Amino acid sequence: MVNDEYSLALLCDFYELTMGRGYFNSPVRDRIAYFDVFFRRVPDGGGYAVAAGLRQVADYIENLHFTESDIEYLRGRGIFDEGFLSYLRDFRFTGDIWSVPEGTVVFPREPIMTVRAPVIQAQLIETYCLLAFNHQSLIATKASRMVRAARGRPIAEFGSRRAHGESAAVLGARAAFIGGCAGTACTLSDKLYGVPAGGTMAHSWVQMFDSEYEAFETYCRLYPENPTLLVDTYSVFGSGIPNAVKAVKNVLWPMGKKKCAIRIDSGDITYITKKARRILDEEGLTDCTITVSNSIDEYLINELLSQGAVIDAFGIGERLITAKSDAVFGCVYKLAAIEENGVITPKIKISENTEKITNPHFKKVYRFYSNETGKAEADLITLHDETVDDREPIEIFDPEFTWKRRTLTNFTSRELLIPIFKNGELVYEFPELTEVREHCKREIATMWDEVLRFENPHEYYVDLSQKLWDIKNRMLSEKNGKK
Amino acid sequence: MVNDEYSLALLCDFYELTMGRGYFNSPVRDRIAYFDVFFRRVPDGGGYAVAAGLRQVADYIENLHFTESDIEYLRGRGIFDEGFLSYLRDFRFTGDIWSVPEGTVVFPREPIMTVRAPVIQAQLIETYCLLAFNHQSLIATKASRMVRAARGRPIAEFGSRRAHGESAAVLGARAAFIGGCAGTACTLSDKLYGVPAGGTMAHSWVQMFDSEYEAFETYCRLYPENPTLLVDTYSVFGSGIPNAVKAVKNVLWPMGKKKCAIRIDSGDITYITKKARRILDEEGLTDCTITVSNSIDEYLINELLSQGAVIDAFGIGERLITAKSDAVFGCVYKLAAIEENGVITPKIKISENTEKITNPHFKKVYRFYSNETGKAEADLITLHDETVDDREPIEIFDPEFTWKRRTLTNFTSRELLIPIFKNGELVYEFPELTEVREHCKREIATMWDEVLRFENPHEYYVDLSQKLWDIKNRMLSEKNGKK
Repeated sequence: MVNDEYSLALLCDFYELTMGRGYFNSPVRDRIAYFDVFFRRVPDGGGYAVAAGLRQVADYIENLHFTESDIEYLRGRGIFDEGFLSYLRDFRFTGDIWSVPEGTVVFPREPIMTVRAPVIQAQLIETYCLLAFNHQSLIATKASRMVRAARGRPIAEFGSRRAHGESAAVLGARAAFIGGCAGTACTLSDKLYGVPAGGTMAHSWVQMFDSEYEAFETYCRLYPENPTLLVDTYSVFGSGIPNAVKAVKNVLWPMGKKKCAIRIDSGDITYITKKARRILDEEGLTDCTITVSNSIDEYLINELLSQGAVIDAFGIGERLITAKSDAVFGCVYKLAAIEENGVITPKIKISENTEKITNPHFKKVYRFYSNETGKAEADLITLHDETVDDREPIEIFDPEFTWKRRTLTNFTSRELLIPIFKNGELVYEFPELTEVREHCKREIATMWDEVLRFENPHEYYVDLSQKLWDIKNRMLSEKNGKK
Repeated sequence: MVNDEYSLALLCDFYELTMGRGYFNSPVRDRIAYFDVFFRRVPDGGGYAVAAGLRQVADYIENLHFTESDIEYLRGRGIFDEGFLSYLRDFRFTGDIWSVPEGTVVFPREPIMTVRAPVIQAQLIETYCLLAFNHQSLIATKASRMVRAARGRPIAEFGSRRAHGESAAVLGARAAFIGGCAGTACTLSDKLYGVPAGGTMAHSWVQMFDSEYEAFETYCRLYPENPTLLVDTYSVFGSGIPNAVKAVKNVLWPMGKKKCAIRIDSGDITYITKKARRILDEEGLTDCTITVSNSIDEYLINELLSQGAVIDAFGIGERLITAKSDAVFGCVYKLAAIEENGVITPKIKISENTEKITNPHFKKVYRFYSNETGKAEADLITLHDETVDDREPIEIFDPEFTWKRRTLTNFTSRELLIPIFKNGELVYEFPELTEVREHCKREIATMWDEVLRFENPHEYYVDLSQKLWDIKNRMLSEKNGKK
């Protein structure tokens, strides 16, 4: 795609343009719209998600414009009037955006981004905002699960070849790093985003030489710093490990180097790694680590480690880069309010599917941390003009089963949504990617184990303030009686 | 990503560069390598796949070069010698590529692309070739299944917002069109590739106005040509359909226009569409069609239609654009032979997982069509220098159970792999995308229903010629005894 001159303005659903022209030619044209980005369920039945993708949203917003060829294309469609096309030619985003920082742990039904802008603008950015958040949050969340399963062992993201296209490879590696991966095989992700890229050899390297030993020997000579030798091209124990041991002893040891690794990409990982470890140790290669790949995910990692597989590092491809077991992150972009002449009117979407009912109004999200444990206890969605005083006890309640109530005391609250754009200007300074990764790590550390577990995690509390709850329920009652 | 100046040369796995430098500094440097792209299983347990992505591979190959900033990045990694960096600065692809055309029906274990090039070049393009084929073949295959389930009803691809990044949205829409979708919501895919983009309104359109009726009335006035009204923002039967009927009668009918549609995005689709149809017909809106969306896939389409749901068209989002039920297409890129001084030596990859054993040598693939039925009977993988004479009977046999034999007579054979690049020059003229889509449709029409069905499809025959089988088995026996 890099060869096509294009802006990303047309990376929108066509209905955003038909609606845009509609708004432009109707009385609602000058209304300000508030849209929330939120999701309804965590992939894989998990208890938490990791937000990512904001950086790409910001890049998109800052560069958002229609090129002459975009305008030409739209004119060719025959349904857009010249007034609207002229509006698009001068288009730029002038609104406000609040968002959680990347790497933040987030939960269903709470806004993770809020957009406030003239309705045509706010509508047009829907698709890109969603696809950036959905993609990277999906992969960051999946990576976080795998990293936790690996219990300190580094995971390298290996999946570019199975990614859903170019940006899925490059930005997927970025998201996996945010979620805790140690690095990637994707070189471009290193160059563009500083995700450490690494890699050594494929089976083809071994096959290109006249013998497996020659392949290993050549590699060790060229890369004597901690080379990883792939030992399963022909037979792991029949030739791979013996040849690796021989190459290490003949090439690395005389150079005084001990650090090296073998990689196993097939077969019964538990059996092979146990036996491999024993052989390597017997041969004196105690500094030779064992990396495994081949269709790994968090469930298999758990299983392998509980079986006593001897693994120092993982390479994970398709099941991370596609989030294969549940490949959809379902962020939606829903109208929450409109503003006209300074007056904000909340809006609600009702649905036959009750989980599709939205939380109305311009809102804030608070997270409460216990001062005793440092752990996150609950999130509270409030109206935009409510404030929480950490010195006062606060009663929260389940928005569905309202008799479930709890009073929090001795807590510290934190506002999750912070200003990113103000009047179209970027007002947020993006941290380095390594800092985003650290933020994510700290966020996970504040979560109770019950929220983090894979099977039947505890449902973290995301409650509504009394004022918000009252407004929502009043609107539901009114709409129910309305034609 | 469009704002970062970059070439796609670094969209490679890092090991392709470490191997590249290794080959460059070793005796195998001038060897020619033959790599096959093939896959081992069809997603979703299906019986066939649709190949797509070749166009992007060709664009990539034609533009493949390292920019100065790529070289700078690599130099900064500290492991690439200046000789190799200088080689990369002048890099271009000079090899040959054969491939099946896009839209071709393909099966496991047969080469769908073969690359012949000096080893460093052939190795470097591995990742991009795989990701382009894997992504678009995944989506084209999924789309083909959904289109067949819909039995003639058009499907619009709606999933950009849930796609795995920018290229997944734009190229996913392209692949879905190849697989048979009627169009997309992705505007950019229309501009770049001519995939017809369409779309009308979101729930937010309805919410932006002071009433649902005003929203519909305004829309019909602005878009009187076949407008689609989204009727489930508040209550489908309580307000949505009554307001739609009123708007159509008040705005369209006086203009002499009858064509319009309603879209339903939630609730019990079968119940709602049956009742909606009855109401629309009673109101005289017999030309109003019904479109449904909301987490649709081929299984649900089958189910809805067998329940008698009254549906004219589908809009399909996340389950198509991510191929959610099985989000990985597993094309691999495996060394099949090397050539030195004009002599080709076959290469094989053995594995503890027997399905990972490769078919060695430089090969061709023939497909046999019965002259009586026009249906495809089997594919045969042969050595590159074998030819099939359609006038002679040919005996084919199962490569695993070799006693299963069959003699084909009265057939027409077709070579599947056609030249795409010759000495680095593109020698293939890409057809228009609509022609690719037609090709795919014709391909599907030549398949037996048994191969096409969703549950327990017949396994299409992909056999090896006797000569190829002999070479493979000789190599397996030899390797087995080898250290």
